[in-house]
Amino acid sequence: MKTSYFDNSATTRIDPQVQEVLLKTFSRVYGNPSSPHAAGREARKVIEDSRERIAGALGVHEREIIFTSGATEANNLVFRGVGEKKGKHIITTQIEHPSVLEVCSFLEQEGWSITRLAVNETGGVHPVDVQKAVTGETVLVSVMWANNEVGTIQPVEILGKDREYLLHSDAAQALGKIPLNLKAVDYLTLSGHKLHGPKGVGALYFRKGVPLHPLILGGGQEFEKRGGTENVALIAGFAKAVSLAVGELSDNRKKMEEARQRFITMIKTIPESDILGSESDRLPNLLNVSFKGVDAEALVLALDAEGVYISSGSACSSLSTEPSHVLLAMGLPMEKAKNSVRFSVAVDTRNEEVEHLIRVLPRTVSRLRTFSEKKVDG
Amino acid sequence: MKTSYFDNSATTRIDPQVQEVLLKTFSRVYGNPSSPHAAGREARKVIEDSRERIAGALGVHEREIIFTSGATEANNLVFRGVGEKKGKHIITTQIEHPSVLEVCSFLEQEGWSITRLAVNETGGVHPVDVQKAVTGETVLVSVMWANNEVGTIQPVEILGKDREYLLHSDAAQALGKIPLNLKAVDYLTLSGHKLHGPKGVGALYFRKGVPLHPLILGGGQEFEKRGGTENVALIAGFAKAVSLAVGELSDNRKKMEEARQRFITMIKTIPESDILGSESDRLPNLLNVSFKGVDAEALVLALDAEGVYISSGSACSSLSTEPSHVLLAMGLPMEKAKNSVRFSVAVDTRNEEVEHLIRVLPRTVSRLRTFSEKKVDG
Repeated sequence: MKTSYFDNSATTRIDPQVQEVLLKTFSRVYGNPSSPHAAGREARKVIEDSRERIAGALGVHEREIIFTSGATEANNLVFRGVGEKKGKHIITTQIEHPSVLEVCSFLEQEGWSITRLAVNETGGVHPVDVQKAVTGETVLVSVMWANNEVGTIQPVEILGKDREYLLHSDAAQALGKIPLNLKAVDYLTLSGHKLHGPKGVGALYFRKGVPLHPLILGGGQEFEKRGGTENVALIAGFAKAVSLAVGELSDNRKKMEEARQRFITMIKTIPESDILGSESDRLPNLLNVSFKGVDAEALVLALDAEGVYISSGSACSSLSTEPSHVLLAMGLPMEKAKNSVRFSVAVDTRNEEVEHLIRVLPRTVSRLRTFSEKKVDG
Repeated sequence: MKTSYFDNSATTRIDPQVQEVLLKTFSRVYGNPSSPHAAGREARKVIEDSRERIAGALGVHEREIIFTSGATEANNLVFRGVGEKKGKHIITTQIEHPSVLEVCSFLEQEGWSITRLAVNETGGVHPVDVQKAVTGETVLVSVMWANNEVGTIQPVEILGKDREYLLHSDAAQALGKIPLNLKAVDYLTLSGHKLHGPKGVGALYFRKGVPLHPLILGGGQEFEKRGGTENVALIAGFAKAVSLAVGELSDNRKKMEEARQRFITMIKTIPESDILGSESDRLPNLLNVSFKGVDAEALVLALDAEGVYISSGSACSSLSTEPSHVLLAMGLPMEKAKNSVRFSVAVDTRNEEVEHLIRVLPRTVSRLRTFSEKKVDG
């Protein structure tokens, strides 16, 4: 069966150039980067070149980048590593990734106080709300750069100005989709597999001088911030993916927006469909749509049967049938939240994939509506 | 230059069959294992098949295996995840991997009490010492299955009998080298890259019912014990590596012992050389040798210049010039510890590699001795 992938916010297909780097590194570079001999030095060089490449792409110093096993670890590292010199208060939002929300609940049990800000109806945090929540005890403010379910871009740059708190942003979804000004933040979370790199690798940017206690101890790797033998090949592949995603950002963005625009045009022909989130401040690759009377889970499964892969909510919670915490935080009624699905394109989305989706979506929505009406009638 | 690799305790070359699995998975399996569509289900299946394969090789239930980013994370997870229901006392040894020793120091700062047992002159822990150290507050005893610097196999099975503590063992070095009876322990740490699997993946065995609080939160993956999108390809490669290493254990062991025996015969021709550790209870792949009057760092570098890769101490601390904490714990005089290097073979060690080493080692030791005598004379 022909398959079409519109779940790129969950994870992406690996770029062929990245794949080449992975294969080359797995087959040729075998040393332990901590070993002093030539095989070790070669592995060390791969890591340091990769670090330089990523730092260069982001306009920061290479000492400010450490590699992790992914964005989830990086988020946990920041929240548990920021320390409590000033107090034990953290401000975040209700629409963060589960890795942020869950580590916050953990910290609450440990005696921290957590403020989880609401968002407006398009999914945006208001900077004034952050300002109002700040107390003398506030150590950290963490607001994701762009949301993973509706794509709303947050005012991180504004939050970065004139502040007395440390600022973290999870940019797993934003990197490679929109330009990021790292001068705004103290900590930034990056993910490999959201931008055509491998799963199992990510990074944390941490500005020179900010506190950061390691989460995983032992061995002194990554400037003593993250122990364990480095996953050399994944790091090399990740660096390649970042340099492609950032280097070709404006071209990539145009491609994604074009694919999405064709899709929006089609959506508008489907009655009682509603595009959620912000029209202006939205990632170029993502679209969250509510189809009235159509159960999201049913739509995901019906499209799956046609070889079209989309998601309801984020992958991180899509095995659950709870309605999205993000949509509820935006004030959507429960019913509408349960009718919402996410379509996400990528730079490698093919024309025939978009055509496939355009062909099957309207008739599938219509079929499910007929079915659910019958159920009501019967 | 022809190169010969004798640093297999630091890391190993990837097995060609494992490499094939990596490439196949990277290129074909792209979904997020948490996504409900076919691409996600395919990725989920790779993980669950891998888990089953590893559990099968170890004779445990698949619900008892979770994947981590490596052995260091698994060790951190156990120590910080065991909880303090019974008390806050942990017993371990002075010869553990830095990931254990450093997380113990961290826990000490958090109010835990840590007993670090000494070892005998061959690097073995005495079970009676463990028994004596146990108090009513003792939550966890952690003793590595085999040491990474001298290869001494520890009495983990004895420690597993008639006990009132939870028992953890770091088997990163032991798995695939000697048979492991998992019935003895509650927690076991596994590493991918020590047995011809990829770097960046490992696992923790945790017996059904034992406490384990997650270290990395968010998303609910790995039975809610380890959040984050799973590194599907590495997990598949790791499972292949484990099944090869465990399935062909006795053949592999024979190969490693044969290579090492040729090497021991040669060592015995070098005057004033001393093989450290236990002759009977030792891993089949490892040899730690002290060459009187020869600085270990100098020997590593001199052999490196000849294309022969060995190490002084473990890779995890080999960028430091401190003498090995393991050798000092065994009661070696500082001087002798500074003269000790580690040679480690693997199942893929080629005959010509052994011959290369046999050719260059005696003359290199002799040259360095002449040089250091001259220095003393001058």
